[in-house]
Amino acid sequence: MRVSVFRKEHFNAAHRLHNPSLSDSENKELFGKCNNPNYHGHNYELVVRVTGEIDPVSGYVIDMKVLSKIINEKILHKFDHKNLNLDTQEFKNLNPTAENIAVVIYQILSDELDKHYNIKVWLYETERNFVEYPAAD
Amino acid sequence: MRVSVFRKEHFNAAHRLHNPSLSDSENKELFGKCNNPNYHGHNYELVVRVTGEIDPVSGYVIDMKVLSKIINEKILHKFDHKNLNLDTQEFKNLNPTAENIAVVIYQILSDELDKHYNIKVWLYETERNFVEYPAAD
Amino acid sequence: MRVSVFRKEHFNAAHRLHNPSLSDSENKELFGKCNNPNYHGHNYELVVRVTGEIDPVSGYVIDMKVLSKIINEKILHKFDHKNLNLDTQEFKNLNPTAENIAVVIYQILSDELDKHYNIKVWLYETERNFVEYPAAD
Amino acid sequence: MRVSVFRKEHFNAAHRLHNPSLSDSENKELFGKCNNPNYHGHNYELVVRVTGEIDPVSGYVIDMKVLSKIINEKILHKFDHKNLNLDTQEFKNLNPTAENIAVVIYQILSDELDKHYNIKVWLYETERNFVEYPAAD
Amino acid sequence: MRVSVFRKEHFNAAHRLHNPSLSDSENKELFGKCNNPNYHGHNYELVVRVTGEIDPVSGYVIDMKVLSKIINEKILHKFDHKNLNLDTQEFKNLNPTAENIAVVIYQILSDELDKHYNIKVWLYETERNFVEYPAAD
Amino acid sequence: MRVSVFRKEHFNAAHRLHNPSLSDSENKELFGKCNNPNYHGHNYELVVRVTGEIDPVSGYVIDMKVLSKIINEKILHKFDHKNLNLDTQEFKNLNPTAENIAVVIYQILSDELDKHYNIKVWLYETERNFVEYPAAD
Repeated sequence: MRVSVFRKEHFNAAHRLHNPSLSDSENKELFGKCNNPNYHGHNYELVVRVTGEIDPVSGYVIDMKVLSKIINEKILHKFDHKNLNLDTQEFKNLNPTAENIAVVIYQILSDELDKHYNIKVWLYETERNFVEYPAAD
Repeated sequence: MRVSVFRKEHFNAAHRLHNPSLSDSENKELFGKCNNPNYHGHNYELVVRVTGEIDPVSGYVIDMKVLSKIINEKILHKFDHKNLNLDTQEFKNLNPTAENIAVVIYQILSDELDKHYNIKVWLYETERNFVEYPAAD
Repeated sequence: MRVSVFRKEHFNAAHRLHNPSLSDSENKELFGKCNNPNYHGHNYELVVRVTGEIDPVSGYVIDMKVLSKIINEKILHKFDHKNLNLDTQEFKNLNPTAENIAVVIYQILSDELDKHYNIKVWLYETERNFVEYPAAD
Repeated sequence: MRVSVFRKEHFNAAHRLHNPSLSDSENKELFGKCNNPNYHGHNYELVVRVTGEIDPVSGYVIDMKVLSKIINEKILHKFDHKNLNLDTQEFKNLNPTAENIAVVIYQILSDELDKHYNIKVWLYETERNFVEYPAAD
Repeated sequence: MRVSVFRKEHFNAAHRLHNPSLSDSENKELFGKCNNPNYHGHNYELVVRVTGEIDPVSGYVIDMKVLSKIINEKILHKFDHKNLNLDTQEFKNLNPTAENIAVVIYQILSDELDKHYNIKVWLYETERNFVEYPAAD
Repeated sequence: MRVSVFRKEHFNAAHRLHNPSLSDSENKELFGKCNNPNYHGHNYELVVRVTGEIDPVSGYVIDMKVLSKIINEKILHKFDHKNLNLDTQEFKNLNPTAENIAVVIYQILSDELDKHYNIKVWLYETERNFVEYPAAD
C-alpha cells in the first residue's frame, strides 16, 4: 500500500534576482523588475510530497506532525521573514529563483527524512508562478 | 489521444484515529488530538482522476455527469455526514487515516469504472494535509 | 485613522444538530443528514474582524500575534479536534449550528478583547455555507 | 538540475457541445445542458507546465515573462472573450470539450516552444471539472 | 440574536455586453472584447446573504437546504448553461452586466423569501471582478 | 440602482516594520520577525470597492478596465516589485504596516476617482492577515 502524502506550509521572504557575473544592464534586461536592487518579496507556498508504504500500526505513511515539524525547523526557520540573498547561507552565491529555492529545499529535506521515502517539492512564488523539483518528466 | 480528466467532490464526516491493539496512552502518544474518544471531523475534498482515450463521438474521456453520479452514489452516499468509525463497514476495523480512506475510495471506484480506465484519487483532509493513491512514485 | 483588521484561523470538530425538545422524527425532518446520531464533522474556518484606531507607535490596530494568540487560547484550544456536543461546556445545552457557534465565539472574544474594539466574526462551516455575527444589517 | 515550472493563465469563452453527425435528440441526450443551441460559457483556467534544465546564467528553466507572453499571444489572443464554436478555426469542426481544448492548446504550445522542453497542460472548465494532456498515465 | 447567513452557488452562462441604442463602433469602444457578437461566457459565483433572528427551535436563521433550493429553482434553473441575452426574459432588453445581473437576482430572491429577512447578493464574474447589491454604502 | 463593484489586483513587495523613535530592542520586541533589518516580503492582494449608481447607457457603475488601469498606474506601478521602505516616497517616514498601506492606497485612489464614488480598500498581507479601510464600524 504505497501512498503519497502532502504537507503545505508557507513562508514570507524578500529576494532579488541578480547574477554578479553579468553587467547591471544585462541583469536589468534579464530579470526586469525582479532585479530591483532594494529587493521585493513573496508569500511562498511550499508543498512537500512524501511517498512510502502505509505503516500498519499507525495507518500513516509519515506522521504529518513530524513532517510539519521538520519543515518548520529546517526550512521555515531558515527562510521565513528573511532576505534570501542577505540572510541565508544557501543563497549567498546562488540566485534565489523559484527553481533554485525548490532544489535547495529538496536537498535539505532529503538529508532530514528517512532514505526509504521519495520526496518532491512544489514552490509557489505567486498563485500563477510555481515550480516542481525533481522535474515531472 | 489519451487524456486525464478530474472530478472534485466533497463530503463531511467525523472520525477518530485509534488502533485497538495499542494501549490508551500509546494511542494518545501516536495520534495526539486526532485520538479524541468523542471524534472530530473534516470537510473532505476528493479529487478523482480518470485516464483514457478521447471518445471520437462525444469528445469525452468519460462523461463527467456519469463520473460524478458514480462518486455520489458509491462514495458520498456512504461517507457524507457520517461517522467513519461507527457508521461505515469499511472503517469498522480499519483506522480512518487519510491514507486508508484514499485506498478504500480507490478500490470502490476501481470496481465501478470500466477496466480500461486508469484511476487515481487525492483526498484532502484539510487544505494543508492531503494524500494521493496510487502513490506518485 | 480607524481601520478594521482581520485574522483567519481554523479548527476541526465533530457535531450533531439536534433539539432534545423535539421527537426523533421531527429532528430527522428538520436537520436531515446533520442529525446523524453518531455525528459528522467540519473544517471550520473562522475570520475575526477587529476595528479600532491605528496606534501611532506601532502602526497597528492590534498586534496580529496577540490577536492570533487570544483566538488560539480561548477558541481553538476549546473547540479544535473536539466533539462540540460532548466535549464542550458551551454546546452541552445549545444546538451547535453555525449561527450559534458564531455567537458563542463572539461572546468569548468580546470578553477577552479591550472594550474600545468593535468585533465581528465569520464562521465558514463549508466553503458554501457561512455566517456572520453580529448581523450585517 | 531538471525542474518543472508552471504558469497559470485564464480566458473567458462561450461554447456549445454538439456533434453534427448525431441527431438533435441524441445530442441533447449526450451533452445535456451543455448542448444549449445558444451557447453557455466558462472562466477557463489554464496551467502550462514546462520541464527542462535550470539555465546556469539565469537560474530559470524558462523566463516566465517569455512563457506568459507566448501563452497570451498564441492562446489567449485566440480564445479569450470568444465563442469557441463560431470564432475560432480550431473548433469549427472539433467539439470544444475540455479534453479537445487541452489537446489543441498543447499542440499550439508545442509548436511555439523549444523542442528540448517537455510540455503539459491542465485546463479547468470549472473548479470541479478539469483535464490534463498528455495523459498522466 | 440577529445573524447573517451566506449561501454560495454557481452557474455557467454566455453573454454579450451591448446597448442597441448605440452604434456598433460606440459599442465596441465602450464594451471592448465583451461586445463580441458571438458572445463569451463565465463561471458566475453567486453569494446570497440572508439576515434575520436565530429561530430558537432550529438554531437556524434560515434552513440552508431551503435557501439553496430556492436559489436553484428560481435563479440557477433560469440562468445556468444559458445565453443570458437570448435565452432569458430578464435580459432581453437589459444589458447583462454583472451590476444588472445582481440587481435582477436580488429582485427575484426578494419576491421568494419572507419579508422579515434582509437580503444581499454578491456576483463574481471572475475572481477579480465582482459586484454587491444593494450597495454597501 | 446603487451597486458596489470590486476589482482585485496584486503586487509583490519587500518591507520592514520599524519605528525609528524606538530602540532596537523595543523594535524587536514590538515587531518580532517583521523587524528583520534586511526586510522580508509579501504577495499583497488588493481589493478596491467602488460604490455608485448604475450608468443607464453602459450598465456599469464604473468601467472595470478604467478602474483596473487607475489601480495599475497609480498603485501597482509605485509598489509592485519594490521595497516599500526604501523605494517609495509614501513609506519613507511611515511604518509600512498593512493598516498604513491600506490608508495610503485609499488616499491615492480617492484623489484619482470621481468624488461621487464611495471607495473602500481591503489589503491582504497574507491569506490569514488582512485589513479594511475605511473601517467597517
